Amino acid sequence: MNNLIKAYHNKKVLITGGLGFIGSNLAHRLVELGAQVTIIDSLIWAYGGNMFNIEDIKEKVNLNIGDIRDRYSINHLVKGQDYLFNLAGQVSHIDSMKDPFTDLEINVTGQVSILESCRQYNPGIKIIYPSSRQIYGKPQYLPVDEIHPVCPTDVNGININAGEWYHILYNNVYGIRATSLRMTNVYGPRQMIKHNRQGFIGWFVRMAVEGKKIQIYGDGEQKRDLNFVDDVCDALLMAGVSEKANGQIYNLGDQEVVSLKDLAQLIIQISGQGNFELIPWPKDKKRIDIGDYYGNFSKIKTELGWKPKTDLKNGLKITVEYYKKYLDKYLV
Amino acid sequence: MNNLIKAYHNKKVLITGGLGFIGSNLAHRLVELGAQVTIIDSLIWAYGGNMFNIEDIKEKVNLNIGDIRDRYSINHLVKGQDYLFNLAGQVSHIDSMKDPFTDLEINVTGQVSILESCRQYNPGIKIIYPSSRQIYGKPQYLPVDEIHPVCPTDVNGININAGEWYHILYNNVYGIRATSLRMTNVYGPRQMIKHNRQGFIGWFVRMAVEGKKIQIYGDGEQKRDLNFVDDVCDALLMAGVSEKANGQIYNLGDQEVVSLKDLAQLIIQISGQGNFELIPWPKDKKRIDIGDYYGNFSKIKTELGWKPKTDLKNGLKITVEYYKKYLDKYLV
Repeated sequence: MNNLIKAYHNKKVLITGGLGFIGSNLAHRLVELGAQVTIIDSLIWAYGGNMFNIEDIKEKVNLNIGDIRDRYSINHLVKGQDYLFNLAGQVSHIDSMKDPFTDLEINVTGQVSILESCRQYNPGIKIIYPSSRQIYGKPQYLPVDEIHPVCPTDVNGININAGEWYHILYNNVYGIRATSLRMTNVYGPRQMIKHNRQGFIGWFVRMAVEGKKIQIYGDGEQKRDLNFVDDVCDALLMAGVSEKANGQIYNLGDQEVVSLKDLAQLIIQISGQGNFELIPWPKDKKRIDIGDYYGNFSKIKTELGWKPKTDLKNGLKITVEYYKKYLDKYLV
Repeated sequence: MNNLIKAYHNKKVLITGGLGFIGSNLAHRLVELGAQVTIIDSLIWAYGGNMFNIEDIKEKVNLNIGDIRDRYSINHLVKGQDYLFNLAGQVSHIDSMKDPFTDLEINVTGQVSILESCRQYNPGIKIIYPSSRQIYGKPQYLPVDEIHPVCPTDVNGININAGEWYHILYNNVYGIRATSLRMTNVYGPRQMIKHNRQGFIGWFVRMAVEGKKIQIYGDGEQKRDLNFVDDVCDALLMAGVSEKANGQIYNLGDQEVVSLKDLAQLIIQISGQGNFELIPWPKDKKRIDIGDYYGNFSKIKTELGWKPKTDLKNGLKITVEYYKKYLDKYLV
């Protein structure tokens, strides 16, 4: 922590997607650490951006509404920044299948645009890119490590993978320091729960907090590892300050593995309300499903000293409590 | 061969990039096989398209000038086609680094556009996609097989890789049959030799045929395997008719491995003119160079029965003879 204060105090930090789930949690951490934070966010309705996410730090950050597809504004905004947490993205698997072009424009063309801006206007910047477990597709073995073959099962996975390669390429060829973190399912306060197309955890929490029924596809035995958002912010911050991490790709992950059914039951128990049912797989979701997944995160543990500190039960307690308090802020 | 006549006779075949090197050679083969060939080509000056490439079959094919980035025209052109050889692309590694956006538009967005057209207007089509050895980056072992990790060292490699995944995804999710062939260096008649940004072989041949000096970077000991274009056309045609190939990725390659220095000497000897010199690596080329590469093609050999039939010496003789005869057609 002292290490991180030293690294980020008074530093200029740009967060794309900074009104979103992970971006806004990271902004809170960086404000605490004394950084000068600039947020770029497009506030596209279906995505994760939410003004309430920075309500308590809004006087302490510089907010710039903008879209990473807007090549010209980014040129200006990267200038003079020490760090870029490149968190803006289209993250819905199912939306990427329905509209591959938008996913491609944001997650690939937008990334190239940002990297070109850095190359031209700020090659000394350090960039952290959030990749995803999803690029591995259906695991060939478990837990999945970084050398597991990449085999994306949806459009979003292909594009996230390309975005990751672009970051590594610009690191290797142009010396623009970049690190990619392949995230597993992340949960916690400030996650988008307006609709259920961006992952199941936030939606499960919403259903429970509203006293409704959580629907789980199939037998509910699909296994996942989950990271609490504070632990993910730790990983982002640690990768940011590590020179060893330049050009590297790291899995995140958790030692705890849980079935979706057990997860739903745990959320219901913590909330003290809600229930669940098993329903057949919708065809469009089944064909891009990956079965069980959990990651091997020993590379980042060994090289950067990161490991998740929040166990699932505690993380879910904090999350449920947050949404009980602020549910109305996340419904519109 | 009888097998191929049966498969392609009277069939409707669309070739994007059909005025280019591989596309036009394939068009000749398909005309011989009795197929009804439609060619799409944008004739962008710096790329491989050349009207002379179909001079002798121009009455037997349907030529449609068009760009695969033009989403609407493609919708119409895929209708009713039995096969699509999806050969249009930006192929210069060095140009992709100078202008990543154009490479991305053609090699990714253009591919998604074609696949979406097929999904909407002709889901029964069979597609063959030309991928590249280049997506492997610097080989971790030799010969490189299909399970070798993908690690592209330039923008073009990242985009070719994404284009390949899109084809496999549309095969797996939507049942639009697609096969990807990861090509190594291809040479032969009808290759673009106007400039040297699309690979070394055509350029070496041009220099020799013009009696000039072939320049080789570094010590000239970099090893490569080369495929003669007729053999590549065989692979494309065989993959087209094989149901086993659907959703599969195959390396091409050759049993013969040659250093660039030995290749230059062989071309000079066959041409009876020209000479060569070793020069230091230009910085922009060195940083995307991959060192030695040769491929393991036993998967396609076993599954589809393909192997290259033309040895390097004979292939180069045919090539040199062709350019001696038609050099002026390939300089402007």
